[in-house]
Amino acid sequence: MEYYQLTPINIVTYLQSLPEVCQKFSSMDNLEVQEIFDGNMNYAFVVSNKLDVNQSVFVKQAPPYIKVLGEQWPLSRQRMTAEIQALNYQSSVCPEMVPEVYYQSESLSVLIMQNLSKHTILRTELIQARYLPRLAEDLSTFLAETLFYSSDFALRSADKKAMVSKSANLDMCLITEDFVFTYPFEHHEMNAYNPALSQSVIDSIQKSPDVRAHVAQMKYIFMNRPEALLHGDLHTSSVMVNVQQTFVIDPEFSFAGPMGFDIGALIGNLYLNYFSHAHNSSAESVNYSHWLLKTIDDLWYKFEGKFLSLWSEHEQSSVSTFMGKDLSGDSHQTFRHLFLQQVLNDTLGFAACKIIRRILGVAKVADFMQFEDQKLRAKLETQALKMAKTMLLNRQSYTNIADVNKLAEEIRLI
Amino acid sequence: MEYYQLTPINIVTYLQSLPEVCQKFSSMDNLEVQEIFDGNMNYAFVVSNKLDVNQSVFVKQAPPYIKVLGEQWPLSRQRMTAEIQALNYQSSVCPEMVPEVYYQSESLSVLIMQNLSKHTILRTELIQARYLPRLAEDLSTFLAETLFYSSDFALRSADKKAMVSKSANLDMCLITEDFVFTYPFEHHEMNAYNPALSQSVIDSIQKSPDVRAHVAQMKYIFMNRPEALLHGDLHTSSVMVNVQQTFVIDPEFSFAGPMGFDIGALIGNLYLNYFSHAHNSSAESVNYSHWLLKTIDDLWYKFEGKFLSLWSEHEQSSVSTFMGKDLSGDSHQTFRHLFLQQVLNDTLGFAACKIIRRILGVAKVADFMQFEDQKLRAKLETQALKMAKTMLLNRQSYTNIADVNKLAEEIRLI
Repeated sequence: MEYYQLTPINIVTYLQSLPEVCQKFSSMDNLEVQEIFDGNMNYAFVVSNKLDVNQSVFVKQAPPYIKVLGEQWPLSRQRMTAEIQALNYQSSVCPEMVPEVYYQSESLSVLIMQNLSKHTILRTELIQARYLPRLAEDLSTFLAETLFYSSDFALRSADKKAMVSKSANLDMCLITEDFVFTYPFEHHEMNAYNPALSQSVIDSIQKSPDVRAHVAQMKYIFMNRPEALLHGDLHTSSVMVNVQQTFVIDPEFSFAGPMGFDIGALIGNLYLNYFSHAHNSSAESVNYSHWLLKTIDDLWYKFEGKFLSLWSEHEQSSVSTFMGKDLSGDSHQTFRHLFLQQVLNDTLGFAACKIIRRILGVAKVADFMQFEDQKLRAKLETQALKMAKTMLLNRQSYTNIADVNKLAEEIRLI
Repeated sequence: MEYYQLTPINIVTYLQSLPEVCQKFSSMDNLEVQEIFDGNMNYAFVVSNKLDVNQSVFVKQAPPYIKVLGEQWPLSRQRMTAEIQALNYQSSVCPEMVPEVYYQSESLSVLIMQNLSKHTILRTELIQARYLPRLAEDLSTFLAETLFYSSDFALRSADKKAMVSKSANLDMCLITEDFVFTYPFEHHEMNAYNPALSQSVIDSIQKSPDVRAHVAQMKYIFMNRPEALLHGDLHTSSVMVNVQQTFVIDPEFSFAGPMGFDIGALIGNLYLNYFSHAHNSSAESVNYSHWLLKTIDDLWYKFEGKFLSLWSEHEQSSVSTFMGKDLSGDSHQTFRHLFLQQVLNDTLGFAACKIIRRILGVAKVADFMQFEDQKLRAKLETQALKMAKTMLLNRQSYTNIADVNKLAEEIRLI
């Protein structure tokens, strides 16, 4: 089918033509369309049955440009192909953690899926200091399963390389290369700084040859390490939660990249939230901050444990393994340890880049933007930047998250 | 044109149909065909004018199987597409160092090119202890130019990623993954050991958890680091030389991989040759060994210098550079230093894997196989394995080649 733009007017006729969607409604005669204006890139609609609000679908369509900027800002629809492939892959390995897809069309760049009406964006929950007891458990499962099963440890060499080629997402990778790893670190017109943030703090990042060189290393790793099929943009607004369930959404930046990029995006955004609570010394806030740090610690260790379990199970059930037969009995274990250490180092480096870009780059986070008091915001941003700089430069020397959490606590007390 | 097999019988008619080839001969009526039986994978012919021996072409064709093993050992003809693309690329950046291509056909998997009749295989020259004054200069140029211009420092992000996709060479990569990084390190039926090589020496590689884990790291880097368009098999039989000229040939293993793999292949094979001269304590042999070490040292430093020059020239002439504007004046330099240090570490790791696989794996080198005395050969092999193990495990701590050369000299004296 040739591409055309869905609108609140034509979308009902389109949905009525799709048996997979009709199945979800008792009747297609009383549909109500609500356009969702949250996203910047894509059109989104919730279509519900007026007679039964529990019957609804979420429709997402990628136009060949950036939605909020208009047709003069072209952006390849390849991003929706990438999102469709990523969702298909993620639902094949952990179906309980991604929205169910009812219908997909690469030619129309359309996804029609489960409407998560009973879930909230994770970032909102964190800002409101809500405890989410399943968070570390669920997200570590998502990370371990999606990263392991698309890696060279699970796939045959040729299948892995085919996956890498098929997951190309050029425009979206370029956005990350520019907006995460380049612009925030130079004097770029796209940057936006809190006016109360001191120039010396900005310079401590942008004019530090060490910071700049280490960020360039992380950018190079991002561009040259197709380890696994990533979500590609796994911050705390790409997760929807309630007390029972966790869903990962919006993998439109998906591509084959370094494992630490997904884990680092999550951890970086959790630390951003941690520093947004740092101004409040109430017992409640201090307790919540402890929970945040424990969640970060749990997220890593549960990820590590689950990834190692999948790996070791796979090795035991395979005829040939990545590194060949283990003649001494502890070769595999030695390699697995070295490998996970590398993933931890990458995770910390990427988390640091994500923290910095949310403060010096154009895209801000609500965790900090909620503060009208620019001086208070600047104080918290300065703490987060200090944390990021240390994590980035010392990433090779950390062997656990507990020490990184100690750093966060020390900086918060300054 | 549909694929068919060239033979000494039908090749003349085929060449007569190609204007690009006819140009190279004063007449096509007196052609002589000589089949070349050196290679294992491909058919090769030299076709010359009987009336003027200076008029000749070299013809190489990849059958859809491994030539020496026959049709029951299928191997994709993608390897010739990769070789054609690699030669085209290499001749675009350093035309003086690769044979001139007269005609190429992806559909027939055929390359017709300059016949290097006045050059000898580098490995043969090294075994015969011949001095080659241009070697380090020329090979460092080849490495710097081919690796730099296909990297993210020279190419736009989307062009680089297109190059990576286009250079897929699945079957050949799998051969390297198995025969370089896996089989030699386990008890594999494909391995072949010198009967005089002691079991404890073999075990010191295959049963060392550290060696196995570090080899697995190198295999992982080989599979997950598409930094630049590599030659892919740059040992000393892929280089043809005389006193005036150096040519790099046979890039049928070409793919987008880690820079250190090409440099390490060369350096590893130069060290293999170094240890093959270690039994001879004549002044001549000692002098030659010094020349070999100096050549390895020169090769790295000249490569490093040329790569840095290309990079710095490119940065000065570009509007946007890989890491953005340098606000402190030494950020670029700091990153370049970190980057080259990583390439050196990779180089040493890959050189070590190459040395080990040539001793414990199926593919041997003439440098050692020339010795009928198996005990002598075992002594030299043991030295080379010791060198490789140390290089591999300590690769992160070397900051220069001089220290690696010192290690070679110390081991030789044992």
